[in-house]
Amino acid sequence: MTAIGIYGSSGRMGRAIAEAIELAGATLAGGADAGDDPAPLAQTADVLLDFSTASGVEAHLAAAVAAGTPIVIGTTGLSAAQHAAIDAAARDVAVLQTGNTSLGVTLLATLVREAAARLGPDWDIEIVEMHHRHKLDAPSGTALLLGEAAAGGRGSTLSELRVDERFGLVGARCEGTIGLAALRGGSVVGDHNVILAGEGERIELGHYAQDRSIFARGAVKAALWLAGRSAGRYRMGDVLGL
Amino acid sequence: MTAIGIYGSSGRMGRAIAEAIELAGATLAGGADAGDDPAPLAQTADVLLDFSTASGVEAHLAAAVAAGTPIVIGTTGLSAAQHAAIDAAARDVAVLQTGNTSLGVTLLATLVREAAARLGPDWDIEIVEMHHRHKLDAPSGTALLLGEAAAGGRGSTLSELRVDERFGLVGARCEGTIGLAALRGGSVVGDHNVILAGEGERIELGHYAQDRSIFARGAVKAALWLAGRSAGRYRMGDVLGL
Amino acid sequence: MTAIGIYGSSGRMGRAIAEAIELAGATLAGGADAGDDPAPLAQTADVLLDFSTASGVEAHLAAAVAAGTPIVIGTTGLSAAQHAAIDAAARDVAVLQTGNTSLGVTLLATLVREAAARLGPDWDIEIVEMHHRHKLDAPSGTALLLGEAAAGGRGSTLSELRVDERFGLVGARCEGTIGLAALRGGSVVGDHNVILAGEGERIELGHYAQDRSIFARGAVKAALWLAGRSAGRYRMGDVLGL
Amino acid sequence: MTAIGIYGSSGRMGRAIAEAIELAGATLAGGADAGDDPAPLAQTADVLLDFSTASGVEAHLAAAVAAGTPIVIGTTGLSAAQHAAIDAAARDVAVLQTGNTSLGVTLLATLVREAAARLGPDWDIEIVEMHHRHKLDAPSGTALLLGEAAAGGRGSTLSELRVDERFGLVGARCEGTIGLAALRGGSVVGDHNVILAGEGERIELGHYAQDRSIFARGAVKAALWLAGRSAGRYRMGDVLGL
Repeated sequence: MTAIGIYGSSGRMGRAIAEAIELAGATLAGGADAGDDPAPLAQTADVLLDFSTASGVEAHLAAAVAAGTPIVIGTTGLSAAQHAAIDAAARDVAVLQTGNTSLGVTLLATLVREAAARLGPDWDIEIVEMHHRHKLDAPSGTALLLGEAAAGGRGSTLSELRVDERFGLVGARCEGTIGLAALRGGSVVGDHNVILAGEGERIELGHYAQDRSIFARGAVKAALWLAGRSAGRYRMGDVLGL
Repeated sequence: MTAIGIYGSSGRMGRAIAEAIELAGATLAGGADAGDDPAPLAQTADVLLDFSTASGVEAHLAAAVAAGTPIVIGTTGLSAAQHAAIDAAARDVAVLQTGNTSLGVTLLATLVREAAARLGPDWDIEIVEMHHRHKLDAPSGTALLLGEAAAGGRGSTLSELRVDERFGLVGARCEGTIGLAALRGGSVVGDHNVILAGEGERIELGHYAQDRSIFARGAVKAALWLAGRSAGRYRMGDVLGL
Repeated sequence: MTAIGIYGSSGRMGRAIAEAIELAGATLAGGADAGDDPAPLAQTADVLLDFSTASGVEAHLAAAVAAGTPIVIGTTGLSAAQHAAIDAAARDVAVLQTGNTSLGVTLLATLVREAAARLGPDWDIEIVEMHHRHKLDAPSGTALLLGEAAAGGRGSTLSELRVDERFGLVGARCEGTIGLAALRGGSVVGDHNVILAGEGERIELGHYAQDRSIFARGAVKAALWLAGRSAGRYRMGDVLGL
Repeated sequence: MTAIGIYGSSGRMGRAIAEAIELAGATLAGGADAGDDPAPLAQTADVLLDFSTASGVEAHLAAAVAAGTPIVIGTTGLSAAQHAAIDAAARDVAVLQTGNTSLGVTLLATLVREAAARLGPDWDIEIVEMHHRHKLDAPSGTALLLGEAAAGGRGSTLSELRVDERFGLVGARCEGTIGLAALRGGSVVGDHNVILAGEGERIELGHYAQDRSIFARGAVKAALWLAGRSAGRYRMGDVLGL
């Protein structure tokens, strides 16, 4: 049985991961939080999961490298320096860094990229997302990730193609643009739908999250996949063979 | 068999109506356009359909009143003076005025009003519409009609409650607001979905138009319903007994 | 603050109701289970919720009547004799009996009945539901409830109109029938969509449950509404003023 | 400009193709029907489209081979002998045979196969389709095509995995099965949705046809792509580079 260690174990995500480890039939090697020495956990665990804060990432990487233990970095808000630290660590141990640990979203992004690439620019792309009423920003990070995938499939970037607001006399749609719309209401965990609309037909590629446990579950899948891998920097898509 | 006359018979809607009359098993009494004398058609027909331009409405109403023939006014962009002319004519003949002749949209608006009224303000309302890439304005007239129905169900008006744009750090959703979002792409005739999102559950009330013939078909249904009615001003909802 | 007592308090629904009472800002008067004397709880509580088993219903009703306390019966699988006992008790106290305590489903059933009644038999009705992979029966009780509402709107019963299977050379659709389809997969709590499909347009009326807490929440809303009411038999729709 | 010839030019699909050729900016080389000599058309055209009946396929292939003209076979209901004739002809000229000329459906099938292959058997697959009330068979050919793609992604065949009816006490879902459901109503041209439901999340991959012109448009795209290709047997997916 693979023993998984958690940095950031007392946070909401850390606790969800502990549950997911049990459901997956793996072992919890232990947890550590800000202020704890990261070294002992790195030595005990077969693989590490980091869902703490960006400021701890360098210390966690150093501990992983020293112990030769693969590590999944799910912490968000990383700086360029922290990304460089990940690249450096990946020369010595396996490191998987991702901003979204949902397997479904990871797969969907690949499908969206493929669809956008295969269908010509006469197929218009629109992305609509819905989240609960307490969400503060719009559109969601996942909508941006999907938009980036669509833009990439078209050989461009989302910042080149995006249209965020559509209100009033907007005029006819510009070919090649990608529209983004955000709905808010109730307790919706996260719905995303990518619409590719051609003349007389439409393709819709959607992901619907029911509860937040999918992120913990995906993180554990990533950890189990990473354990025992050789040094290198990996992406979430690698877990699915994408 | 009811004989239906069309003002604006050579326009796109006029021709679609002529087809719908045939499908409905009614008779086309004839058509008239701008420049024609409206009186003869009013005398021949059992009921009149006006889908011409706003500037002709007063003359068509006068012809209907003189002949005692009920008239459906589907022309849009009416001024306050033209609405007053409709009120005056309705004292002498049956007049049904509407901006949307789809039976489905008419029913949906009633259902939306009812849902908004019954569910408390802790159910958030969002309206999302999608139309073809050539549509110039956003949101659609039908989305506004549905938003007005929702706001009415809450004892308010859409202009009080509407939120049209959601982009960036928008903050938590304000209770009681109604969000509007517009998607554009392909050749979509008109999709409208009203989402009422509560804690842990969601109701969605949607209308999906496949082709524009529904407007002609609804206009003919309205004409057949209006023929033989006594004087008064009617709405599309009356045709459905709403 | 209204004090709510629960019969069946140690079951899964009983515990969910206890949580919902707290969230609603009401007070838990206490709980009782099979084997407990129901009388003390009925005397302490302002209103009672019964989510135990059918066999206990008569004793709970007797306790409610003796104490003059309104009672919500959410227990399912009631016999004709138990329904008669409810009718009898309702002459002395307020009794609300329901098989589904979701406010959203209750409202949707009313909207479906209205839509089916207003749109002619040339609008075909289809009901599709999706539930998690562990559900044993199909279609769901809620799908049947919605089908009954649709059939009622057409002046008929579901058993007259229902079509449950469609496989092979089924031939053209028979006018007036109501199709039912069941999807199973993942951990879906309960999705229901009623489609009314006419020539060239479609109305869809759907309910999407995110978690099972909505049933507990609806039960508490029903209890708060029932507290202090005069004798009579009530339905869930009364809570929404339907 | 590419000159396209049509076998089966006076059928409904033949006439739709003639329209699509004009919209695509290509030239109609001419048409032939059962009873006509297929040779002259094969000599004039740059590429041929066969949407006649299965019985004519061998003669059309022979004419194409004799003239060295690429040919798209969209005729359905082909026998094993006719498939063998296609294989033989493909040694001499380019032949693209397909049962579905929609670009959207072709792409969707690839995405479905990929999704089914990447997500483990703990993701349940359900396919639901809706068509107009006059359709005689269920499920649709496109639903079967999508089901075959999903089964192929799982290293199996649809006949091994399919579950067509779900009614009564069906018991828990069997892992790895693929459910199929058919809805019928109104004038729906063809909606298909493939649901992959995992624990706590769901992916939906759908195709929505608005009008039948998409099949003619896709056939013309295939013809323009095939013109000038070297001998070989091609699939619709090749047109999209899949």
